[in-house]
Amino acid sequence: MKHLEAFALLTVVLSASACATRAEYNPPGALLIQEQGSFAVGGTVITAPGTFDPFRQGHFNPAGQDPAGQTLHGDHAYVSYQLPVNARALPLVFWHGHGQSAKTWESTPDGREGFRSIFLRRRFPVYLIDQPRRGRAARSTQPSTLTAAPDEQLWFGIFRIGLWPDFYPGVQFSSDPEVLNQFFRQMVPNTGPYDADVNINAVSALFDRIGPGVLVTHSQSGGLGWRTAIKNRSVRAIVSYEPGSGFIFPQGEAPEPMTYAGGTARGVEVPLSDFMQLTKIPIVMYYGDFIAESPTPNPGQDQWRATLAMARQFRDAVNRHGGDVTVVHLPEAGVRGNTHFPMSDLNNVQVADLLSQFLAQKGLE
Amino acid sequence: MKHLEAFALLTVVLSASACATRAEYNPPGALLIQEQGSFAVGGTVITAPGTFDPFRQGHFNPAGQDPAGQTLHGDHAYVSYQLPVNARALPLVFWHGHGQSAKTWESTPDGREGFRSIFLRRRFPVYLIDQPRRGRAARSTQPSTLTAAPDEQLWFGIFRIGLWPDFYPGVQFSSDPEVLNQFFRQMVPNTGPYDADVNINAVSALFDRIGPGVLVTHSQSGGLGWRTAIKNRSVRAIVSYEPGSGFIFPQGEAPEPMTYAGGTARGVEVPLSDFMQLTKIPIVMYYGDFIAESPTPNPGQDQWRATLAMARQFRDAVNRHGGDVTVVHLPEAGVRGNTHFPMSDLNNVQVADLLSQFLAQKGLE
Repeated sequence: MKHLEAFALLTVVLSASACATRAEYNPPGALLIQEQGSFAVGGTVITAPGTFDPFRQGHFNPAGQDPAGQTLHGDHAYVSYQLPVNARALPLVFWHGHGQSAKTWESTPDGREGFRSIFLRRRFPVYLIDQPRRGRAARSTQPSTLTAAPDEQLWFGIFRIGLWPDFYPGVQFSSDPEVLNQFFRQMVPNTGPYDADVNINAVSALFDRIGPGVLVTHSQSGGLGWRTAIKNRSVRAIVSYEPGSGFIFPQGEAPEPMTYAGGTARGVEVPLSDFMQLTKIPIVMYYGDFIAESPTPNPGQDQWRATLAMARQFRDAVNRHGGDVTVVHLPEAGVRGNTHFPMSDLNNVQVADLLSQFLAQKGLE
Repeated sequence: MKHLEAFALLTVVLSASACATRAEYNPPGALLIQEQGSFAVGGTVITAPGTFDPFRQGHFNPAGQDPAGQTLHGDHAYVSYQLPVNARALPLVFWHGHGQSAKTWESTPDGREGFRSIFLRRRFPVYLIDQPRRGRAARSTQPSTLTAAPDEQLWFGIFRIGLWPDFYPGVQFSSDPEVLNQFFRQMVPNTGPYDADVNINAVSALFDRIGPGVLVTHSQSGGLGWRTAIKNRSVRAIVSYEPGSGFIFPQGEAPEPMTYAGGTARGVEVPLSDFMQLTKIPIVMYYGDFIAESPTPNPGQDQWRATLAMARQFRDAVNRHGGDVTVVHLPEAGVRGNTHFPMSDLNNVQVADLLSQFLAQKGLE
């Protein structure tokens, strides 16, 4: 009895102290990161003709140096990564769209957690890309002129936040002016000529470095993602938010071009042998709300009418050849009000839940 | 007896299960992040004359849109932040140098932890800046032309890694070619005209947002840091790694210009009333190795001879007026082999330890 009593008290003390210590360092809501960092991957090196003389040119001359014999490392991607504690096997590799950077996946314009932190909490290793000639990967091997031409009202429409100056009713985007201010300031220019192959090569080099993973694309990178998966077998699945162009088809199978208010959507034909790689991996595409169902003079809505139709043609072509492609038009799934940026809309946790369900269904967790 | 026995067993079970659960999620080496994210701060908005017509201009035209009536939000800073669990009171705000981005403070070129993760482990809130017209803050309100001119051998010398193509003996920089490849790819161009006031205004806006903090500068941002502290009283201390130019002095107190192989170091005079703000906060400057003690034809070493002499003049001027400025020439402190990037050199943990000691000595922990 006596030693049992003592044993009981001893156990209580031990358990209290040990757990209190851990609790102190592990409060609810904390992100547990095993490793984080950043690196450059891919790219090329150019060398100017001539000989470099360190004694003549060693000082900084704001008017510009003599490049003779010097190198420039450029056209790489910049990648930031975080590996959570008890990480799942397959990482998520996030690739931004036109005029954007990895910021797309970080904090939302209204300051909530974006997909980076949401999926870290779900124990996925997360890699964020700044594609070549963009953001922190801005060193280009080709010169370029930046015009600083105002264009934000254009994007307000294309990104389906509304028809400037009005927000769409029920849009999942805050009407707080500071939120639109933050959203506009996410944009970054190209710092070199846009080159699809330069981008695909750098992202393929990333998969060579990290091995198998799930590629998550947005808008312009959607079209690049299909071609990256053809180039690199380590792309084990593709999740594409609002792929906007570059849908590929086997030679002879591209649908008729689809005109819309302000442009024409066209398929891109590739050899069947390349196309068939897309039949070997699960692919899902998500589209938001405010997409016209019939032709409309509102270009921001009409462009996506044609794009969604082309995405369904792409889905049917891949599946016809034995693939596994799904198009999710969010309103049809009961998820309403999304813009061109579902990953950072007010309901982005609901959008993330759909992605988690897809990954579970396809055995990618 | 019976219920005591039961109590003992129950306690054992509870303590074992509870602690095992926490241990599973809190392994050694994990970073514990309470919150992380990113945002834009500061900047301006320009608006093109005319009226925006969303029906005419709503579609994307690769040849460029009519800017009529449209806006461009630019000249802001991009800031990424991480707040550790049990964070200290004063955050560290890290500001990169010329041609660099916040990457300076992330992984080192050889893949080890940089100051971001090192000081998160030491429980400091960490804010990393991409200054306006750079990296992820690339949207500029002014146009610019990027030349893509090779210049890396120049920087190899100015950054005191060596005298191209040779590394300095004992330099704290790996001779693995992939490390130099990573280092060169850290560089990013200006995406608009360099404007000191644009940079100072954005970083001051950051301190307005986050409140009191310690500003950590590098190279070119050193000179901007002094002026940011004059502008914003929330800058409670400055830690400057190899400030390279822009040392300020009260009117009439600037030293004679100092010539070096390839240029001239000059002080910048400001009103005494502004200058006096620098006497109210602790300031420390760190300089690495391979700095000439007497004039040399090696411009990479001679530039820093003059710069270090100017830094000591600046120190003496502030202290003469009642300030608290320290210059640490690392080799004199027994820390040898450092380049212009002590925060990412092979001995960067030792360099970080010196900073921790400074923060403790000044009551900034």
